[in-house]
Amino acid sequence: MTHNKEGVHGGNVDWFARKYGFDPREVLDFSSNINPLPLPEKLKNELTDNFGIFGRYPDREYYDLRKALSEYTGCSPDRIMVGNGATELLYLAVKALRPGKTLIPAPSFGDYERAFYGTGLQMDFYRIKEELDFRLDMESFLRELSAGYNMTILCNPNNPTGYLIPKEELVRILDEARKLNIVVLLDETFIEFAPDPDAASVIEEIYAYDNVILLRALTKFFGVPGLRLGYCLGHPALLDKMLSFKEPWTVNAAANILGPLLLRDKNYIENSRKWIMEERRHMYSRLNRIDGLKVYESYSSFFLVKLLKEGWNVDLLQKILAADYIMIRDASSFNYLNKRFFRLAVKDRVSNEKVLECLEYYI
Amino acid sequence: MTHNKEGVHGGNVDWFARKYGFDPREVLDFSSNINPLPLPEKLKNELTDNFGIFGRYPDREYYDLRKALSEYTGCSPDRIMVGNGATELLYLAVKALRPGKTLIPAPSFGDYERAFYGTGLQMDFYRIKEELDFRLDMESFLRELSAGYNMTILCNPNNPTGYLIPKEELVRILDEARKLNIVVLLDETFIEFAPDPDAASVIEEIYAYDNVILLRALTKFFGVPGLRLGYCLGHPALLDKMLSFKEPWTVNAAANILGPLLLRDKNYIENSRKWIMEERRHMYSRLNRIDGLKVYESYSSFFLVKLLKEGWNVDLLQKILAADYIMIRDASSFNYLNKRFFRLAVKDRVSNEKVLECLEYYI
Repeated sequence: MTHNKEGVHGGNVDWFARKYGFDPREVLDFSSNINPLPLPEKLKNELTDNFGIFGRYPDREYYDLRKALSEYTGCSPDRIMVGNGATELLYLAVKALRPGKTLIPAPSFGDYERAFYGTGLQMDFYRIKEELDFRLDMESFLRELSAGYNMTILCNPNNPTGYLIPKEELVRILDEARKLNIVVLLDETFIEFAPDPDAASVIEEIYAYDNVILLRALTKFFGVPGLRLGYCLGHPALLDKMLSFKEPWTVNAAANILGPLLLRDKNYIENSRKWIMEERRHMYSRLNRIDGLKVYESYSSFFLVKLLKEGWNVDLLQKILAADYIMIRDASSFNYLNKRFFRLAVKDRVSNEKVLECLEYYI
Repeated sequence: MTHNKEGVHGGNVDWFARKYGFDPREVLDFSSNINPLPLPEKLKNELTDNFGIFGRYPDREYYDLRKALSEYTGCSPDRIMVGNGATELLYLAVKALRPGKTLIPAPSFGDYERAFYGTGLQMDFYRIKEELDFRLDMESFLRELSAGYNMTILCNPNNPTGYLIPKEELVRILDEARKLNIVVLLDETFIEFAPDPDAASVIEEIYAYDNVILLRALTKFFGVPGLRLGYCLGHPALLDKMLSFKEPWTVNAAANILGPLLLRDKNYIENSRKWIMEERRHMYSRLNRIDGLKVYESYSSFFLVKLLKEGWNVDLLQKILAADYIMIRDASSFNYLNKRFFRLAVKDRVSNEKVLECLEYYI
């Protein structure tokens, strides 16, 4: 048995470090798309002061955590379910709702496909066109979706392309889906990185839909992939179905008490927004000036980049950058992408300069 | 939607505290079967010194953690898989192995049944007889198992009865199962509480079987239900099947670094063994002297108890004990048990005295 499934996700720093004989702390990880700001110091104190929580089962209802999520999202707690990252809730939704036929735009997050593995359910891809710079062509997508599908999974902003579906188009998709009894799993795990998250998210519209589940997580925007904390929002009838299949205590005690602190930390949220706006703009303009690259406009915490330079591919680039301890994401594992594509996270300015200088030098 | 599924598991202290208006820290929780010794202080320091781990994805291969489990169990790392408690691995095994027909002795842990929910797989119960004081009658069990079943799930020592299958009987079950191509999920999450765990466990025999998966966890014996850390041991071919369905990063970063510290803490392990041997003996003899109760012999960290007293049931007892902040486990949710039965954890001496005095007084 090998536990090594590198390449399917970013963020496998330990595997990368073992491969090249590095200390994991030396690695500059541009493969995963996590807020690089240091975690608020008070989190550490909170956990130290309450270390005994590991000796008790977490509250099975996650009452306080859901209350904090309710304040953060504006949704009532009975429309909120927590999970071990958004991943658990994705797999759970597929398992519990058992849609007859599902249509998924691609390239997109690989675990959507994986959630169907072994379920016996039909799952098809809708190809997002490179010719349109990976923007979703709503008209053709809706046409295909209405041809007998029962579910769709949309990632907004999309991973790995960074594309954000305009709000009015998104609402039209939800409306059409509601008319046709199609469940929409809308993955908003990167939504807080959008230039105007409140305008980009459909969180305020969610009460009008009994066919929509919003997937969210603290992982990316709050920079806590090690904490394992996701949530979803949706109509109580949909969540009830999921609950009957849900494994108990999937959210650990640390996530349960640190989650509310993060969600209420207005400073951290504001600094994170400032960071992403500045660094994304800076990185885009620098990448855009490199002739051998094509960078796609992004509303998220990463860029999809295409290698235009003759004879180059991502394997070569990975090897070259590894000499500088830099780890990037081979994007060829995404459907319809190939070895020309890689994904690059937006990090802190010092790290960004390092990868930008390398790319400017080598490409 | 209600998240409240109290009664199905023990340990729902927060629900109990909300119900009675208590502070959760005041509750004496005899409903969950967790080692009550305080966690080693060095765990706290380790987490404080490495707080940045929450900002990174855990190692997807959990290399160091599996290495520590390998030292602890004597099995090689390629036969070890980690999970979010043993629960994740139980559900995962059912999902990945998809046995045609499964036979489960009962009363036993309720999540075995729940793991089959919605899978479309057939699952039957083998009734463990009260007349035999809930000992497993191996001959009749084997006879039934060999009538076309593909999987069985055994809990050893069994929850909620505390019964330990003698090693020679257990080995005979595994041998018969191997001959008949029956997968045995053997839940050893309470095995370290047995009087001689090395003799009780089949961990040393596991290499001889390609049809056995041992479920284990740090939850109970190491007293860390909030950490969410389980593991399983088995033939690489079985684990490979499970791996292809496994969700990524289900073990959080804290569990990943604290697990090895616990597993290597010989003092904590020795103190825990001393505690369980003393307190279990003490509690058994006291409970045994109460006329209105029948207590079953236990090799685990809890007792199954039957109310013999005329007109009494567990609802009444729960109400009476709640006045003293004591929470016990209604065992009527277990198959073939009724409102006469409750489960009582073994805790520290001071707490044990309190519940024993209450029972002696009221019953």
